[in-house]
Amino acid sequence: MTASAAPDFLQALLDVEVALAVAEAEVGVIPASCVLDIRAAARAELYDGAALAGEAARDGNVVIPLVRKLTEAVGARNIESARYVHRGATSQDIMDTALVLQLRAAGKTVEASLTRAMTGAAALAREHVLTPMPGRTWLQHASPTTFGLKAAGWLDMLGRCRGRLQDAVDRAQVVQLGGASGTLASLGDAGPAVAEALARELALRVPSMPWHTHRDRIAEVAAAFGIACGALGKVGRDLALRAQSEVAEALADEGGGSSSMPHKQNPVRAVTAVAAAIRAPGLVATILAAMPQEHERAAGGWQAEWQPLADLMSLTRDAAEAIAGTLGHLRVDPAAMRRHLESRGGVAMAESLATALLGHLSRSEAMTLVERLCRAAEREGRPLRQVAAEDPVVSRQLSPADLDRALAPEHFLGAAGTFVDRVLQQWAM
Amino acid sequence: MTASAAPDFLQALLDVEVALAVAEAEVGVIPASCVLDIRAAARAELYDGAALAGEAARDGNVVIPLVRKLTEAVGARNIESARYVHRGATSQDIMDTALVLQLRAAGKTVEASLTRAMTGAAALAREHVLTPMPGRTWLQHASPTTFGLKAAGWLDMLGRCRGRLQDAVDRAQVVQLGGASGTLASLGDAGPAVAEALARELALRVPSMPWHTHRDRIAEVAAAFGIACGALGKVGRDLALRAQSEVAEALADEGGGSSSMPHKQNPVRAVTAVAAAIRAPGLVATILAAMPQEHERAAGGWQAEWQPLADLMSLTRDAAEAIAGTLGHLRVDPAAMRRHLESRGGVAMAESLATALLGHLSRSEAMTLVERLCRAAEREGRPLRQVAAEDPVVSRQLSPADLDRALAPEHFLGAAGTFVDRVLQQWAM
Amino acid sequence: MTASAAPDFLQALLDVEVALAVAEAEVGVIPASCVLDIRAAARAELYDGAALAGEAARDGNVVIPLVRKLTEAVGARNIESARYVHRGATSQDIMDTALVLQLRAAGKTVEASLTRAMTGAAALAREHVLTPMPGRTWLQHASPTTFGLKAAGWLDMLGRCRGRLQDAVDRAQVVQLGGASGTLASLGDAGPAVAEALARELALRVPSMPWHTHRDRIAEVAAAFGIACGALGKVGRDLALRAQSEVAEALADEGGGSSSMPHKQNPVRAVTAVAAAIRAPGLVATILAAMPQEHERAAGGWQAEWQPLADLMSLTRDAAEAIAGTLGHLRVDPAAMRRHLESRGGVAMAESLATALLGHLSRSEAMTLVERLCRAAEREGRPLRQVAAEDPVVSRQLSPADLDRALAPEHFLGAAGTFVDRVLQQWAM
Amino acid sequence: MTASAAPDFLQALLDVEVALAVAEAEVGVIPASCVLDIRAAARAELYDGAALAGEAARDGNVVIPLVRKLTEAVGARNIESARYVHRGATSQDIMDTALVLQLRAAGKTVEASLTRAMTGAAALAREHVLTPMPGRTWLQHASPTTFGLKAAGWLDMLGRCRGRLQDAVDRAQVVQLGGASGTLASLGDAGPAVAEALARELALRVPSMPWHTHRDRIAEVAAAFGIACGALGKVGRDLALRAQSEVAEALADEGGGSSSMPHKQNPVRAVTAVAAAIRAPGLVATILAAMPQEHERAAGGWQAEWQPLADLMSLTRDAAEAIAGTLGHLRVDPAAMRRHLESRGGVAMAESLATALLGHLSRSEAMTLVERLCRAAEREGRPLRQVAAEDPVVSRQLSPADLDRALAPEHFLGAAGTFVDRVLQQWAM
Repeated sequence: MTASAAPDFLQALLDVEVALAVAEAEVGVIPASCVLDIRAAARAELYDGAALAGEAARDGNVVIPLVRKLTEAVGARNIESARYVHRGATSQDIMDTALVLQLRAAGKTVEASLTRAMTGAAALAREHVLTPMPGRTWLQHASPTTFGLKAAGWLDMLGRCRGRLQDAVDRAQVVQLGGASGTLASLGDAGPAVAEALARELALRVPSMPWHTHRDRIAEVAAAFGIACGALGKVGRDLALRAQSEVAEALADEGGGSSSMPHKQNPVRAVTAVAAAIRAPGLVATILAAMPQEHERAAGGWQAEWQPLADLMSLTRDAAEAIAGTLGHLRVDPAAMRRHLESRGGVAMAESLATALLGHLSRSEAMTLVERLCRAAEREGRPLRQVAAEDPVVSRQLSPADLDRALAPEHFLGAAGTFVDRVLQQWAM
Repeated sequence: MTASAAPDFLQALLDVEVALAVAEAEVGVIPASCVLDIRAAARAELYDGAALAGEAARDGNVVIPLVRKLTEAVGARNIESARYVHRGATSQDIMDTALVLQLRAAGKTVEASLTRAMTGAAALAREHVLTPMPGRTWLQHASPTTFGLKAAGWLDMLGRCRGRLQDAVDRAQVVQLGGASGTLASLGDAGPAVAEALARELALRVPSMPWHTHRDRIAEVAAAFGIACGALGKVGRDLALRAQSEVAEALADEGGGSSSMPHKQNPVRAVTAVAAAIRAPGLVATILAAMPQEHERAAGGWQAEWQPLADLMSLTRDAAEAIAGTLGHLRVDPAAMRRHLESRGGVAMAESLATALLGHLSRSEAMTLVERLCRAAEREGRPLRQVAAEDPVVSRQLSPADLDRALAPEHFLGAAGTFVDRVLQQWAM
Repeated sequence: MTASAAPDFLQALLDVEVALAVAEAEVGVIPASCVLDIRAAARAELYDGAALAGEAARDGNVVIPLVRKLTEAVGARNIESARYVHRGATSQDIMDTALVLQLRAAGKTVEASLTRAMTGAAALAREHVLTPMPGRTWLQHASPTTFGLKAAGWLDMLGRCRGRLQDAVDRAQVVQLGGASGTLASLGDAGPAVAEALARELALRVPSMPWHTHRDRIAEVAAAFGIACGALGKVGRDLALRAQSEVAEALADEGGGSSSMPHKQNPVRAVTAVAAAIRAPGLVATILAAMPQEHERAAGGWQAEWQPLADLMSLTRDAAEAIAGTLGHLRVDPAAMRRHLESRGGVAMAESLATALLGHLSRSEAMTLVERLCRAAEREGRPLRQVAAEDPVVSRQLSPADLDRALAPEHFLGAAGTFVDRVLQQWAM
Repeated sequence: MTASAAPDFLQALLDVEVALAVAEAEVGVIPASCVLDIRAAARAELYDGAALAGEAARDGNVVIPLVRKLTEAVGARNIESARYVHRGATSQDIMDTALVLQLRAAGKTVEASLTRAMTGAAALAREHVLTPMPGRTWLQHASPTTFGLKAAGWLDMLGRCRGRLQDAVDRAQVVQLGGASGTLASLGDAGPAVAEALARELALRVPSMPWHTHRDRIAEVAAAFGIACGALGKVGRDLALRAQSEVAEALADEGGGSSSMPHKQNPVRAVTAVAAAIRAPGLVATILAAMPQEHERAAGGWQAEWQPLADLMSLTRDAAEAIAGTLGHLRVDPAAMRRHLESRGGVAMAESLATALLGHLSRSEAMTLVERLCRAAEREGRPLRQVAAEDPVVSRQLSPADLDRALAPEHFLGAAGTFVDRVLQQWAM
C-alpha cells in the first residue's frame, strides 16, 4: 500500500479534518454542534485503506475519497453535521498539514535515537580519548589517531545533524490552509481567522500565505533527513570496516547470523545505516526535482513527494535506531589497535619520524629519507625502528631515545585530547 | 578542465597556503621571513592548470602537485623559505578551506541576485495585489487568484531560500586544519594555535575538531544551493507557462531568437532556471551519496564532491541571475488575465457560485448543481452566467445582482490582499 | 510493510525454495520424498509478513527468518523433510532469483500496457496524420506540425521503450545460485547440475557464474523501467499541457474532480505519468549507487536495492496503465488547433514566409524582414497576411496566391506524412 | 567553460554543419560550390569558445551564435556561400547530431579501456583459478573462494558492460534532422533525401522521424555509461579494500604518495573508479529527469542534458582507464590470502565442517554444533581444528583425516574452477 493510505497517515489526515472543524466552529463558520460528530467519525480504523488507495488513483489524491467517506460516516450520525465537513479546504490543505504533523513526530523519534547514539559515542570518546590506533586515509594506515577522537567525530557530526533536523522540522511547522486557489475565498472574510485557529489547535504556526506550490520548507526537511542518513552511514561504514575479520578493532554484539555459515556475526545494524545512506540521496533528489510545481497546484511534482517523504522518515528512523543500538554495545579492542600500529614494521609512524628529523633536514630531504627507510622495512619485513637505527643520517640526528620517542604512537597524537574535550564540552556530554 | 584546477580555485588554494604561512609565522612555527616569498609565489597565473589537472589524476588531488610547484617557485626566490611551505597541513586541509572560501563568495553572489529577484517580485506583488487572474491547478483554471499573490509567493519563497543559503554557508565557515590524521600531530603542541590564527586570517571559525570525513556541513550547503535552484525553477516554470502563446499574460523582454523562425522570442532566462532545477537534484544527491567517507580520509567520497559542488555554485548563480533579470523586466497584461477568467463561459467561478448557494443548499447539493451548470455552459458554448440564471434553483436563491456578484472575480479573492501585505511586510519590501 | 515482505514477494521466495528442492531431488542431492512436504508448506498465506519484516531487520534479510519458519512448517509435516529445506543455498540466492521472477512478471504487465498505449497512439497518428496544429518549441508557437506526427512520436518512443524493457528483462533472466561464497561448495560436485535443474524448473538461464555482487543486469533492468517512466512522463506532460484551459486541443475523458471546485476535470492519468517520471530517476540512481558491492556479498548496496526495485516496477506499471487509458479515450479538437494556428496574427507561419522569400532574398535578409513583419502584426493586432501584403519587398516577390500559400499551414507540413507512415510501418500498426 | 562550448564539441558541431552542406549539395538543395567555403571556415580553432559560451547563455544554445559566426566566416571567403550555411536545420539538429558523434567516439575509447581491463582480469583469473582466499560477505570472512573466481567475476561483468555500451551507442547512432518543428518543412520535398545523405556522410542511420523531444535513446546511452561506472566502481572498491594495510592481498604499483606521510602508497586508480561510481548515478538521474520534454522542443530538459552527458563520457573514460591500468599491474600475494584463511583459528571453514557433518547430523544440529566450536576457538584463541578434534560428536563422525580435509580450503572450492573456465570461454580470453 502506498504511504498516502497507510493507517497512520490516514489518522493524521482525519486529525486535521477534526481540527479544521474545531477551528471553524470557534470562528463561527460552522455550528459547534457538528464537531463531536466529525470527531467521532474521524478514526482511521473505520476506513478501508486499500479501497481508498484505489480511489485515490482515480481522483488524484487520497483526501478526495476520504472526505467522501468521512462525510458519509458523519452523515450517518447526523445528516446536518455532514454539511460542515472539510469546509473551505482543498484536499492539499489537509494532506500538507498532516504531512507537517508527521514530520514533527518523525523528527522527535529520530532526535531521541540520535541522542542515544550521541550518548554512546560520548562514552567511547571519553573512555578512549588517548587510546592510540592507526589513522586510516584512503583505507591505508596513516599517522596514529585515537579511538576517542574517532568517536568524538561521530558525536560532533550526529549532534549537528540532530540540530539541523530540529531546525528544519521546526521551520516547517506551518499550517497549510489556502482553499482551492490559495486565497481562502470560499471562507469569505473568515479565512485568516480560521487559519489562526487551526494552527493553534495543532500547535503549528501560520505562514504569511499558503504554500501549496512553494515546497522549499519541505525540501529542507527532506534534506535534513537525508543528511542525517549520510552521517549515520558514515558511522555505519566506519563500524563495518572496523568489524572486518582482519581488523576487528570494535565489534557490535548483535545477531547477524548466516543461513549457511555457522561462524558468522554480520554487522547488521551498521549495514542498515549504510544502506539508508545509499537510498536517501535518491529520495532527497526526488523531492528537489519535484520543486518546480506549476502555478497554484502541481501537475506531478506534489504527487511525486508523498512516498519519498514517507520513505525518508522511516529510513532515517531505522538508521538512527540501528546506530544508537550499535554504539551502545561496542566491544572495543585496544590491543588490536596497538597491534595494527606495530604491523608492517610500524611504518604508520613515518610522518612522526620525518617530523623528528625536520630542522636537521629540510622537509623534502626528511620525506625522501623516511620514504626510503619505509620501503626497506616493508621489503625486508623488518621494523622501521631497526632499519632507521642503522641509517647513518638518522643515527647522527636522533639518539636511540629520540628514535624511540619518534616511533611511539602515544607521543604523536597532537591535539587529539584537546579536540575530544572540546567536542564533549560542545555537546555537554 | 575539471573544477579543481580552474584558475579561481587554484587561487583560493594558494590563498590558503599563504594564510597558513602567515598563521604559522604568527605562532612562531615558521620564520616570519618566509611569508613574503610564499605570498609572492602564490599567484594562480604562475601555474599551468591543465598540467596540474594531469598530475592530480595521478597523485590523487591537485594540491599535491600544486604544493610541489609552489615549493619550487618559493625556492627559486629563497631556498630557505621553501622549507616552510604547507607545513603541518595535509592536502585536504587546503582544499577544504579553499572550498569554504569559495562557498562564501558564491553565497554572496547568489544572495545579491536573489535580493534583486525579490525586489522585482515585490514590485509586481504591490502593483498587482488585486489584479485578478485565473488560479491554475493541475494546469487547469481554478478559482481566481491575483497576480500580486502569485508574485508574493515567489518573493516569500525566494526570501526563505536566501536566508537558508546564508545560514548554511555561515555554518560552514569553519577552517579545516587537521594534518595527516586529523590530530595536527606534526605541529607538536602548536596545532590548535595555528588553527586559530589561520581561521582569523581568513575570517573563518575554528571547529571543535577537524572534519575531513564529516561532511554534513558541506551537504547542508549543497542542499541549500539545490533548494534555491528548485525554487528558482518554480518561478521559471511559472513564467515559461505564462509566456505560452495561448496564455501570454506576462512576457519577459529578452533575446531568445530562433535560428530558423523569425517570429520567436523564447523565454531563455526562465528556461535557464528550469534547467538548473532539473540538474541540481542529481548534484545534491551526489554530495549526499558521498557522505559515508571512510575513517580519516575518504576512498572515493571526497573526490566525488569536487565537481558537483562547483557545478551547484555556478548553476545557482546563473539561475538566480536569470530570474532576477526576468522579474525586473516583465510586461504584465492584466487584460489577458481578465480575458482568461471570462473564457470557457467563465466556469472558473464555479466554486464562487457554489459557495454563494451554500446555506440554501448543502455542500454536496451545491457542488452537484454547479457542476451540471458548468458542463452545460461548456457544452453549449454559453456563459455560465446565462446558464445559471435560467436554472430554477439558482434563480430562486440568488437575485441577478447576487449572481453577478458571485461570478465577479474581484469579489472572490478572499484573503489575497492580506496575504500579499503580510509577505511584503515580512521581507520589509 | 517493506517490499521485501509483501505477500507477492514472499510467494516468489517460497516458489524458489520449492524449485530448489525439485532441482536437488532431480539431481539426487536430496530425497524426492521431501519435495511434496516443502511444496505444501510454501504458501505465503501461512506466514506473517509483518513479523517476518521485523525479524528481517535483525537478521539482515527476510529469507533468514522465512527459511526458519518454512523449516518449522515442513518439519511439522515430516521431520525428515525439514532437513532438506534451502540446502546449499545462501539467502541471497533465493532473494535474487525471486527478484528475477518478479521482474519478468512486471515486465509482461508493463509490456501489455505499453502495447495498448501504442495502439492508441497509432490510431491517433493515422487519423490525424495531416491535421495541422502549431508546433511548440520553448512552449511557444513554432512552425506547424500535425497531431498525427505528435502521436507518431509517442508511438515510436513507447515502442522503443517496450523493446528495451523486454531485452533488459530477458538478459536478466538468469538464476542466482552460488551458496555462501559463490562457489556452491556445500553441494560438492553437484552444484552446477543443481543450478541447471533449478533454472530449467523456473524457465531461467544459467549464468557463467553467480552474480551476487555483480549487479549490472539488475541496473540495466532498473534503467529500462526508469526510461519507460521518463517516456511515459513525456506523453503525460504533453497531454497535461494540451489539456490546459487555454489550449484544450485534446482532452481525456476521466474523473479528476476537485473537492472544492465543481467545474474541474483534472488530467489525473497524465499527471500520474508525470509524477512517475519525477520519481523514477531517484530510484534508478539508487540502484546505480548501490552497484559497488563489496567482495562476495554487499555491506549495504544489495540491501538498498530492494525497495527501489519494487517501487520502479509498480510506478512503471501504473504510469503505463495511465497513459494506455488516456490515449485510448482522447477527445481531439482539430478546430482548436486550427484556431491556435491563426491566433496572434498567424505568426507561427513566419518560417514558411521566410522560406518562400529565400532565393529572392538571402537567408538573413528574409529572416530580418519577416521578423519585422511579425513584430508589427503582433503590435498592431493585425494578421501577418495583411501586414505582409502591404510590405513592398514581399509584394514584389510574392503574388497574393503565393502569399496565401506561404501562410497556409497545410502547405508547410514538410515530411510529416512520410514520418507518420514510416513509424506506423516500423511498428506494424 | 561549459561542455557545450569545449573545443572538441565545437568541432563536432562544425563537422555536422559541413556534412549538412555536403548532403544538401548532393541533393541539389544548395550549390556544390559553397561546400568548400563552408568546410574551410569550419575549424574550431577559428572561434572563441568563451565568447560563444557567453552568447549561448543569452541565445539559448551555442549553435545560434556559432552559426552566426560561421556564416560571417564563410561570407568573408565568399558572400554567396554564406547564404547556404545551416539551411533547413534547427540548432538542436546540429547539437544532437554532434552529440551522437561524440557518444560514438567516447564509446570507442571506453570500449578499448574495458577490453584492456578484461584482458588484465582474464590473466588474473587464469593464473589464480585455484588460489584460495577467504570469501568475504558483509565484509567478514566467509567460506573460501579463489582469487581467480573473483577476477572472473570482474571480467564477466565488465564484458557485459562493454557489450551493453556498444549496443546502446549503436542504437543511438541516428541522425537528427527535423528543422524548426520536426517536419523539415523548410526543405520542401527534399527533407528526407537530405536526411539520408547527411546520415550517409556521417555514417549514421536515419530514424523513422526526428526525435528532438524523444530522448529515450540518449537516456539508454547515459544509463549504459552509468552502469559501466558502477561496475568499475565495484572493481575499484574490491581493490581498495584488498589494498588495506591489514589485508594487502593485492596491490597496484602506482604513485599515490601523500603530501605529509612518506610511507604512503594510496590506491589512487581504484579510488578514481569508486569516485566515478559515486558521481555517475546523479548524472544518469539528471538525464532521466530531463526526459519529459515539452511538445516539439524542451523548455529546460534538453538544456539540462548537455553537461551531464559530457561528464558521464569523461568520468567513464577515466574510470575505465584507471581500472585497466590497475588490473594490468597487480601484485598478488597468495601467501597473504592463505594467512587470512588461517587467521582467527580458521573459522572461515565453518560451513565446510558443518557440511562434512551433514548426514550424520541434521542441518540445524550441524550448524549449532559448529557455531559453538567457532565461538570457543575465537574465545580461546585456538585453531578450530584443535577445538573440533576435542569435541566428542565431531570425533565420532570424522576421522582426523576427514577433519583435515573438511578444514582444507582447497577441498572446499566447489565449482570455482568450472565457473572461471566458463567465463574465460564466454569472453574467448
